[in-house]
Amino acid sequence: MPSISSKGLAMPESPIRKLVPYAEAATKQGKHIYYLNIGQPDIKTPDCALEAVKKNDLEIVSYSHSAGFASYREKLANYYQKQGIPVNTEDIIITTGGSEALLFTMGSIADMDDEIIIPEPFYANYNGFATSSGVTVVPVTSSFEDGFALPPVSEFEKRITNKTKAIIICNPGNPTGYLYTKEEVEQLAALAKKHDLFLVADEVYREFAYEGKKHYSVLSQEGIEENAIMIDSVSKRYSMCGARIGCVVSKNKEFMATAMKFAQARLSPPTFAQIASEAALDTPQSYFDDVIEEYVDRRNTLIEALEKIDGVQVATPHGAFYCIVELPVEDAEDFAKWLLESYEYEGETVMIAPASGFYSTPNSGLKQVRIAYVLKKENLLKAVKILEEALKVYNK
Amino acid sequence: MPSISSKGLAMPESPIRKLVPYAEAATKQGKHIYYLNIGQPDIKTPDCALEAVKKNDLEIVSYSHSAGFASYREKLANYYQKQGIPVNTEDIIITTGGSEALLFTMGSIADMDDEIIIPEPFYANYNGFATSSGVTVVPVTSSFEDGFALPPVSEFEKRITNKTKAIIICNPGNPTGYLYTKEEVEQLAALAKKHDLFLVADEVYREFAYEGKKHYSVLSQEGIEENAIMIDSVSKRYSMCGARIGCVVSKNKEFMATAMKFAQARLSPPTFAQIASEAALDTPQSYFDDVIEEYVDRRNTLIEALEKIDGVQVATPHGAFYCIVELPVEDAEDFAKWLLESYEYEGETVMIAPASGFYSTPNSGLKQVRIAYVLKKENLLKAVKILEEALKVYNK
Repeated sequence: MPSISSKGLAMPESPIRKLVPYAEAATKQGKHIYYLNIGQPDIKTPDCALEAVKKNDLEIVSYSHSAGFASYREKLANYYQKQGIPVNTEDIIITTGGSEALLFTMGSIADMDDEIIIPEPFYANYNGFATSSGVTVVPVTSSFEDGFALPPVSEFEKRITNKTKAIIICNPGNPTGYLYTKEEVEQLAALAKKHDLFLVADEVYREFAYEGKKHYSVLSQEGIEENAIMIDSVSKRYSMCGARIGCVVSKNKEFMATAMKFAQARLSPPTFAQIASEAALDTPQSYFDDVIEEYVDRRNTLIEALEKIDGVQVATPHGAFYCIVELPVEDAEDFAKWLLESYEYEGETVMIAPASGFYSTPNSGLKQVRIAYVLKKENLLKAVKILEEALKVYNK
Repeated sequence: MPSISSKGLAMPESPIRKLVPYAEAATKQGKHIYYLNIGQPDIKTPDCALEAVKKNDLEIVSYSHSAGFASYREKLANYYQKQGIPVNTEDIIITTGGSEALLFTMGSIADMDDEIIIPEPFYANYNGFATSSGVTVVPVTSSFEDGFALPPVSEFEKRITNKTKAIIICNPGNPTGYLYTKEEVEQLAALAKKHDLFLVADEVYREFAYEGKKHYSVLSQEGIEENAIMIDSVSKRYSMCGARIGCVVSKNKEFMATAMKFAQARLSPPTFAQIASEAALDTPQSYFDDVIEEYVDRRNTLIEALEKIDGVQVATPHGAFYCIVELPVEDAEDFAKWLLESYEYEGETVMIAPASGFYSTPNSGLKQVRIAYVLKKENLLKAVKILEEALKVYNK
């Protein structure tokens, strides 16, 4: 029998998917599950995006330009400029989701066994893209107590070797909800420039910044035009996760020319989804205002309810729609499994993502879970009630 | 300034795209170009596929299953069964184009510096996927004189080392139009089994087999269930290149579980395009009959006209919609450039793909070009007329 590659064997299983078989079994048993484990919002996709697809008049669904529709890139550049991000059409390559943008980026900047420094906990699929690109992730641990603020820059600098090619941040952060300040981005920018590293910012949650806090893009930072790479996506902004449209944006021409070779090899990003994404740029500001208000409301509801539970602590997020919650258990993964396998409260249970899977350092975040507040308030409250009752039983 | 990876520098530029700047300049000069260089058919996408997208009633464009819609995979398995390919739903992972299917496959079966044997000339983007996966392509040259039939299996066996992981074929072939016989597939199957290699068949042109010849799938071959991997796509079958939907199909459970980890890391294939692709399975047989008749007609028209030109030879294709043409020139790439830069016939010129880019062995196919017969007959005839006149001038 032919053998699987070492790379294939090393590909990590997503910590979010790990529990899926238990959830499927629970559903078969007739239990209703509140899914707090995934970042799939229940928010409606903007009408203008849905309508554009319905009204498309394509007769032949042909390849688009490998960098995406020129019209879409132009409109997107305009959108960024309005956000204070000074980029042009030629600085943008449309990709199949933020996922492909990350793959093109890793492939363009790092060879086998090169290193990329990432503050942990981080979006777990970075591990998958790194493995698939043959790149080593070097974590810098951020702490629950500090609300997952940027660790001291000296901690990053300590880890820089001659194999280090980049620092990647997710801002606002998945799974932490932490929104980096302008000063934090400036510190990382100075470090990247000093050591000739790329500074890659995954900014797919840009719009989700709360309490009037302003998101500061890595591309707004002057003087690091050659270092800065931005990853973006329409998935969360317009609740279009299934469209699979993202982009990679940079002023570094050599990087963009290289990423373009990866883009050409796979021909083009999906056409229907580009139609939806281009139209989505006409989404009125009121849509975002409503969505942000809804998320802030959900966040407040969730955190208030969680903090009433004995022994539960929350690192209050200021962006995105996740938070890391510390539970009064020794092994949050075991608890999460148990919730699906062995527990129910009035016929219902809850699915949560054990946070250990978001850490690269072994045995980290064992008591933590990530909760996505992507459900309606009344459901969040029911889910928290279930957690509260479950903890009493589990801890007996 | 941070540096690009060696991998990024090594990423090949597509031979099809290489001439694009010259074509753009020619268009600016006001020349009309007949594009014989790309596999973008002018055939209409089936109505059932287009209508399904227009009538979709999604309110939230959410992630699909990482392996694709269950309903689509089920229907697709049924389609394969009707083609004599005995596979089930669980043997299929839906991918973002055949491109992603090839990337998942290479990542799952080969590590850095592992080798994959491919008969050349081959689809040029295999080079891009190999480079991006860190894999070395080992070519076996097939010959123009034999119409690009399978080279003797001994030629493959000679090249097998302890780093060889797979043989990849494209059947029917791009760029050759060669349709492998059942006997040829059986020979490769026996070799793969003997040496514990994967046998990967890119069968995206399956429907395009002419003169009543039957396509024989690698998955129809008994006894190599653990070795066989099939790559497929809706791009050519339904003239939906821009949808970006393909799949990877295998009975090897370990391989599929590994490919699934790559699929999970990138979350899901595009939703709108899956709706189109699932509906496309209802395309009536008459659509294919018409399309095949049209292609055979185009092929015959093209070849007849080309063979009348002094010194021009064609390897007659029996599948797909490409043919390799040998021209009475020393350097077909130079001629192709010259056609765009310096020649016009009644205000028009032709774009052709130099075939050397489809060979991995240096200085191969220098006199050859690939011509895609994806244009209407009258346009093919005009294009051939231009080639004929151009050759007279060029060879002076």
